Amino acid sequence: MRDITVFSGSAHPELAEEICAHLGTPLHPVQIHRFANDVLEVQLQANCRERDVFLIQPLVPPTQENLVELLLMIDAARGASAARTTVVLPHYAYARSDKKDAPRISIGGRLVADLMVAAGASRVLAMTLHSPQVHGFFSVPVDHLHALRELAAHFRQYDLSNTVVVSPDLGNAKEAAAFARLLGTDVAMGAKQRFSDDRVVISSVIGEVAGKDVIILDDEIAKGSTVIELLDRLRERGVRSVRVACTHGLFSAGALERLGELPEVEEIVCTNTVPPPKPCDKLTVLSIAPALAEAMRRIHDGESVSALFNTGQ
Amino acid sequence: MRDITVFSGSAHPELAEEICAHLGTPLHPVQIHRFANDVLEVQLQANCRERDVFLIQPLVPPTQENLVELLLMIDAARGASAARTTVVLPHYAYARSDKKDAPRISIGGRLVADLMVAAGASRVLAMTLHSPQVHGFFSVPVDHLHALRELAAHFRQYDLSNTVVVSPDLGNAKEAAAFARLLGTDVAMGAKQRFSDDRVVISSVIGEVAGKDVIILDDEIAKGSTVIELLDRLRERGVRSVRVACTHGLFSAGALERLGELPEVEEIVCTNTVPPPKPCDKLTVLSIAPALAEAMRRIHDGESVSALFNTGQ
Amino acid sequence: MRDITVFSGSAHPELAEEICAHLGTPLHPVQIHRFANDVLEVQLQANCRERDVFLIQPLVPPTQENLVELLLMIDAARGASAARTTVVLPHYAYARSDKKDAPRISIGGRLVADLMVAAGASRVLAMTLHSPQVHGFFSVPVDHLHALRELAAHFRQYDLSNTVVVSPDLGNAKEAAAFARLLGTDVAMGAKQRFSDDRVVISSVIGEVAGKDVIILDDEIAKGSTVIELLDRLRERGVRSVRVACTHGLFSAGALERLGELPEVEEIVCTNTVPPPKPCDKLTVLSIAPALAEAMRRIHDGESVSALFNTGQ
Amino acid sequence: MRDITVFSGSAHPELAEEICAHLGTPLHPVQIHRFANDVLEVQLQANCRERDVFLIQPLVPPTQENLVELLLMIDAARGASAARTTVVLPHYAYARSDKKDAPRISIGGRLVADLMVAAGASRVLAMTLHSPQVHGFFSVPVDHLHALRELAAHFRQYDLSNTVVVSPDLGNAKEAAAFARLLGTDVAMGAKQRFSDDRVVISSVIGEVAGKDVIILDDEIAKGSTVIELLDRLRERGVRSVRVACTHGLFSAGALERLGELPEVEEIVCTNTVPPPKPCDKLTVLSIAPALAEAMRRIHDGESVSALFNTGQ
Amino acid sequence: MRDITVFSGSAHPELAEEICAHLGTPLHPVQIHRFANDVLEVQLQANCRERDVFLIQPLVPPTQENLVELLLMIDAARGASAARTTVVLPHYAYARSDKKDAPRISIGGRLVADLMVAAGASRVLAMTLHSPQVHGFFSVPVDHLHALRELAAHFRQYDLSNTVVVSPDLGNAKEAAAFARLLGTDVAMGAKQRFSDDRVVISSVIGEVAGKDVIILDDEIAKGSTVIELLDRLRERGVRSVRVACTHGLFSAGALERLGELPEVEEIVCTNTVPPPKPCDKLTVLSIAPALAEAMRRIHDGESVSALFNTGQ
Amino acid sequence: MRDITVFSGSAHPELAEEICAHLGTPLHPVQIHRFANDVLEVQLQANCRERDVFLIQPLVPPTQENLVELLLMIDAARGASAARTTVVLPHYAYARSDKKDAPRISIGGRLVADLMVAAGASRVLAMTLHSPQVHGFFSVPVDHLHALRELAAHFRQYDLSNTVVVSPDLGNAKEAAAFARLLGTDVAMGAKQRFSDDRVVISSVIGEVAGKDVIILDDEIAKGSTVIELLDRLRERGVRSVRVACTHGLFSAGALERLGELPEVEEIVCTNTVPPPKPCDKLTVLSIAPALAEAMRRIHDGESVSALFNTGQ
Repeated sequence: MRDITVFSGSAHPELAEEICAHLGTPLHPVQIHRFANDVLEVQLQANCRERDVFLIQPLVPPTQENLVELLLMIDAARGASAARTTVVLPHYAYARSDKKDAPRISIGGRLVADLMVAAGASRVLAMTLHSPQVHGFFSVPVDHLHALRELAAHFRQYDLSNTVVVSPDLGNAKEAAAFARLLGTDVAMGAKQRFSDDRVVISSVIGEVAGKDVIILDDEIAKGSTVIELLDRLRERGVRSVRVACTHGLFSAGALERLGELPEVEEIVCTNTVPPPKPCDKLTVLSIAPALAEAMRRIHDGESVSALFNTGQ
Repeated sequence: MRDITVFSGSAHPELAEEICAHLGTPLHPVQIHRFANDVLEVQLQANCRERDVFLIQPLVPPTQENLVELLLMIDAARGASAARTTVVLPHYAYARSDKKDAPRISIGGRLVADLMVAAGASRVLAMTLHSPQVHGFFSVPVDHLHALRELAAHFRQYDLSNTVVVSPDLGNAKEAAAFARLLGTDVAMGAKQRFSDDRVVISSVIGEVAGKDVIILDDEIAKGSTVIELLDRLRERGVRSVRVACTHGLFSAGALERLGELPEVEEIVCTNTVPPPKPCDKLTVLSIAPALAEAMRRIHDGESVSALFNTGQ
Repeated sequence: MRDITVFSGSAHPELAEEICAHLGTPLHPVQIHRFANDVLEVQLQANCRERDVFLIQPLVPPTQENLVELLLMIDAARGASAARTTVVLPHYAYARSDKKDAPRISIGGRLVADLMVAAGASRVLAMTLHSPQVHGFFSVPVDHLHALRELAAHFRQYDLSNTVVVSPDLGNAKEAAAFARLLGTDVAMGAKQRFSDDRVVISSVIGEVAGKDVIILDDEIAKGSTVIELLDRLRERGVRSVRVACTHGLFSAGALERLGELPEVEEIVCTNTVPPPKPCDKLTVLSIAPALAEAMRRIHDGESVSALFNTGQ
Repeated sequence: MRDITVFSGSAHPELAEEICAHLGTPLHPVQIHRFANDVLEVQLQANCRERDVFLIQPLVPPTQENLVELLLMIDAARGASAARTTVVLPHYAYARSDKKDAPRISIGGRLVADLMVAAGASRVLAMTLHSPQVHGFFSVPVDHLHALRELAAHFRQYDLSNTVVVSPDLGNAKEAAAFARLLGTDVAMGAKQRFSDDRVVISSVIGEVAGKDVIILDDEIAKGSTVIELLDRLRERGVRSVRVACTHGLFSAGALERLGELPEVEEIVCTNTVPPPKPCDKLTVLSIAPALAEAMRRIHDGESVSALFNTGQ
Repeated sequence: MRDITVFSGSAHPELAEEICAHLGTPLHPVQIHRFANDVLEVQLQANCRERDVFLIQPLVPPTQENLVELLLMIDAARGASAARTTVVLPHYAYARSDKKDAPRISIGGRLVADLMVAAGASRVLAMTLHSPQVHGFFSVPVDHLHALRELAAHFRQYDLSNTVVVSPDLGNAKEAAAFARLLGTDVAMGAKQRFSDDRVVISSVIGEVAGKDVIILDDEIAKGSTVIELLDRLRERGVRSVRVACTHGLFSAGALERLGELPEVEEIVCTNTVPPPKPCDKLTVLSIAPALAEAMRRIHDGESVSALFNTGQ
Repeated sequence: MRDITVFSGSAHPELAEEICAHLGTPLHPVQIHRFANDVLEVQLQANCRERDVFLIQPLVPPTQENLVELLLMIDAARGASAARTTVVLPHYAYARSDKKDAPRISIGGRLVADLMVAAGASRVLAMTLHSPQVHGFFSVPVDHLHALRELAAHFRQYDLSNTVVVSPDLGNAKEAAAFARLLGTDVAMGAKQRFSDDRVVISSVIGEVAGKDVIILDDEIAKGSTVIELLDRLRERGVRSVRVACTHGLFSAGALERLGELPEVEEIVCTNTVPPPKPCDKLTVLSIAPALAEAMRRIHDGESVSALFNTGQ
């Protein structure tokens, strides 16, 4: 297979640039044309024949625009005779639709996986999928990374002797426990009840948090309602300090501002799987570009990816 | 197969309502939820089991939103055990991407057809596709209607003795000739050169137009640049009057206003395959709801659709 | 579609008989022949042409035998021109392989779903899948029932005023919470760490259990190690009494005996999704045959299944 | 991928020989056996394992024989473990069936594309497809060449100062315009009405032709009825001289003789995409073997094909 | 499913007419158009929507013409929204290509089965396939009839007390044994060695034939070389009389005349699965139309086909 | 494609070891875990990325266990990004289910072939399939070896001047004839009637056997009933000595002992395609590991396999 050839959609070109800098390979341009009837046409601006093509596109808002653009890019690469097309999905928004918890709804995580394969994706490189079962929605090979090592490296600069990792949600509890093991701390968790997308009630906090330095860990923060609800519970229980960490820092609807205004929140840490918000005092953005670049290099070279990214979880 | 069950996406509910009124069947609601990360979830709000499900959704701007919503609806109908899912596509915007006229682009018309089939579409009911070959992009049965009969019925109210039908484009010439045959008039056409989506030059008009009452016929008017360019040529050739007709009246970017301001334009006629613009003096909107309803009834009842809609073309 | 036609594999014919009795339809015989080289051949012993065929087979030990037998039955129904083949899977053992938590393993839950579809399954009726995401592993429609209503009806005969539902595992916490809501009780849960299939440590119990009447709820009990470990923790915390409930009572390797010997265990309740163990004093087996029969009837008649089995969860 | 390995069906072995001479690679024999019941069996007579196999076969009369022979060759290459099988289709006769212009007909262009993929084709190299949309009928990558450069090179030997390119048909107008641009001449076109495969009426000629040296350009000439009809119109309009050019010179039913007898026809130019007719005075056959060979070399070497064959159209 | 709708290709319309007479249903016309470039277009001349469509076409010479015509008919039925398309294949010529007995050949029997499915066949009704394994080449349901009952009914009019059934070939031995059981006679067989399609040597005859009335039974007679070779061996062994029977009487290359001229051959019996040769003295043609009609009726009505056609073999 | 990487399932690791010794490549371990509910999980213990993976697993008893294990291994290799996955099937037990000789049975040989492809098999290397048509059941390339050369080499050590090869069955007659040609001997055969899997009657022996040294050749010996029945017939006909040979020596249900006890049986020869029985006096086991290793090497290197293994049959 010939050289690696990398393209980026319009969702997050900065990340793609950074990945390519680490790989020492150029980021080739993609021309995206929007017709008067709002139809998109993409043109990959470099030869793809027999190349090992990587298409970088996190599914972030505007999610539908970015998704269709990605599908067109995949199809264009196939039509242009790419030897292999790897979709690099630093954030897979549709992974949240992973079960049929109401009648007659779509399981969007499975559908969108099928659409990518129908368009011609040979394989997927994903990061911190909402649930590990989403891996099984794809009928092509998936390499599934997570950002726990990057987050752990950041927090190790602090004194962690009085620290506890708190998951806002039982669903994320295993991830939080793995993170706590990496940091050598205890773990606690909120028992959350979601009544709708907007209304969340955390009824209880399981585990010891009083007087503790808390690191809240979630996979994704969008509106931040869950974390803010958890902060109410933690405040009631008398925690000493709070840092908030997540992989996917979407921060929609003023979430970052609302979190930043809370005095007990000392720091908000996320990665750049999605385009980071405007810089603000309490925000720290870690780069996962080196990890994605290394995984892409290994995929291209046929080296084991699991060997690198296992946390012994 | 049990009763017909009709749902509409959010692209054009008024058309769906009108179709259902003609069919004498209720339009069942669809709940569309948008999550904080811009992910859509649709829920079909009526039992689909073993039903003959029809999903009405023209692909109009915002095209990507409407497309993904449609794909989710198709998948939801499949998951809800629909006996058959017919996608009613009064306007298929991606039909314009029907050839590979530049290297490394996607043929969007084929890709989106494949996506609908991957999501679970059993068949498609389309209207006035941009080129007849697009029919062949679908691997499921397609019923392909056109609106020439509705348009002809409208124009027959006028004195057509001095009239000529003009196609702005060689690509639409066969359609214009069929329309002229229906009206019993002559046909002429512009020889158009498209330099980009925005810039169009009509170098010549083929056929006799001087002193004529002209009906310009196109399949779709979006920005209207082509028609306006044609009007310049017709004015130079001394036409007596102009009426403009099309099936898909998208009228983006102030096109309707620009056309309406031209004094020689006496009327602008389109159908409601797409949501019509705000009413204006010169605009006449014909309804294709009766035609779509009749086609849906025949599809459901297993009667011939071609028998009804043939123009003897 | 013509009459319902039901067959049972050799995994659990008693359940199939009971379902057919509720449906008022005969259970047709299947002849299973084993050749000298251990190859299986199945013959469906009733006409399948244009029939609505249901094949009942929980995947229980010997799991591989039952799986291949099921695949042969599905293929035979397809070859015999069944109009539709619904696989009734009261227990889907491979659902436990739902994620890739080690490199170079198969996601068995997805693979086996694909095998059933490759063999010709039109749809699946499943019960209490190990995780709700497994639903998305199937590319055909799935109706996913659970047994909470049957279990709740049983426990409502007791005084539940001092009762708490305990999940042995964070992964089952949402199910336990739904069950507690049905019973009007509190919920608690063990925080389990699984080191291997055999060795499980429950490090903590979250929620109030001291002096309580406990109902332990799990989806499946095989060796029972988790429950026995939980019982140790509950004993240390001074619970008043314990009842154990699960949907799938596999009870391998003497699990039922080990549980039954514990004095604080007053009752062990399971359903007959799998062949029940020999009767013993403390064991209560509830039948889910009426629920499966009703779902099958609704599937055949095209009525909503979700309408019936929703718990308002 | 290992060496290029080229086979030819029995449709046009001379072209295959010429291509292989340009490539400097042997043309491997194919043994075609016809059984007493008229069944064909093909045997590829050289090792295909992991080779980059090219199968050269224009679909020319006897079209069905050549098509089935090609499908058998594709399947044989797949069964023989070819790494990649490229079908070289210098003429794709079924491309003319590209739309459903009557009820209950097949869209042969799409069907035959699907058959080739079902038989195992990895990709297609085509030449001057009847309409550009036919590209989208294939679900595998297509490289679509045309012969305009070869034709233009030939005509540049003449004084073109008084020349106009005429398309016999509106459907071929864009191709004619591109050809005129290459030659630096004007363009005109006939407005054709086809009443049946046999009866064609050209009602008008659009553009200036009186006193001109005309080059008639069509994609394919079979019976030649259209061109002869056009020649009548051109004669009436007083053209000075006529040369006839096409890519696919099928010349069935004495077409070449009928054209050659017309005194105003000075030359008939075609390429060897199909087996050329017996030499005759006015006939010039250009070879597209160099172009196909270069495209095959680039496909094999993973170089851009579009870079080479673009006419800046 | 609505009414049965039957079409015939051009291979054997007489058989289709006879079948329809038995069914009491009209045979609908198919218009087959051959373009100047030898491309076929078929139009089914009756509404297919939601109909149970049967397409009758034995694959007989010209085999490739008939095959492509059939594929176009299948595709047209799919595009015309047939509820189900059953291909009635009274003779499947490609069944003889059932194994890969030389390197780099196609297994035509499997390929053509796949092509029919790719074109849209829902199921197949076949007769006396060359080997029973060919059934497994189809991925859609197959009903496989044979003509032994029709042949047996014919021969029972004779005194069979001194009769032996002889298979010319070990490959057909099981069929001959079944036929002998039906007639209550002994069985013998030639041990044939085929050196090429043309040259066959029968080295020995196994079983007692001297002084016997012989019925030679084969599945198909094309050139007849095998039977003539067998007749030499039988003559040497002093048989008393010979009758020749087969299902598929192709009789190519003067086979019928050569057989008829042999004095010991008293009768040649075949069925009309293929168009029968011109009547001649010794030839008896039995009709399998009633059997095919009955099978089609049962397929349409969802009754067991095996129940009818089993010979207790 | 990178290095060859070989794994063995648990069916026959000794053969895999021997093959790898011939190839000079390590046999990588596979960890097979059986959960409490009898679910299998396999982990391939070496990097598969872009490797040319071979999975060795004869389908021998326990056949269902070995089959599901193999399917999991195939899926794991696909998920682990193997460039190509070749299934090495020294014995394909399901090949015996190659026809539908009773209504409503599965054709297991086709189904299991489809399951392997659904799981991700790229190609298959098989040995002495029960019938050559089974080759056509696979939709991926198959290399089909046989062991006749190994068996012939063994028997050439004896004086074969008075020898005849006897097939117990007409179905195996061609194979026996080919074997006889290799040895330069005559051939004879039993005419077998199988009433059920257990009861076989050989009614006659065709060909001269009296006073001969007989080599009985079959593809597979399981219970041995057929061979023992044949031995009765041969004894009656006064053969001088008997040797028994087969490719697949399954020897179930004491078959080896029963055969060994017969005084006229001088030797029983099989190969190690399946795990050989415990050594016994009369048993000779030939190794096909060199042949399989050489075929694997040629598959990996893209050399012709047929060139090597053709017997000029």
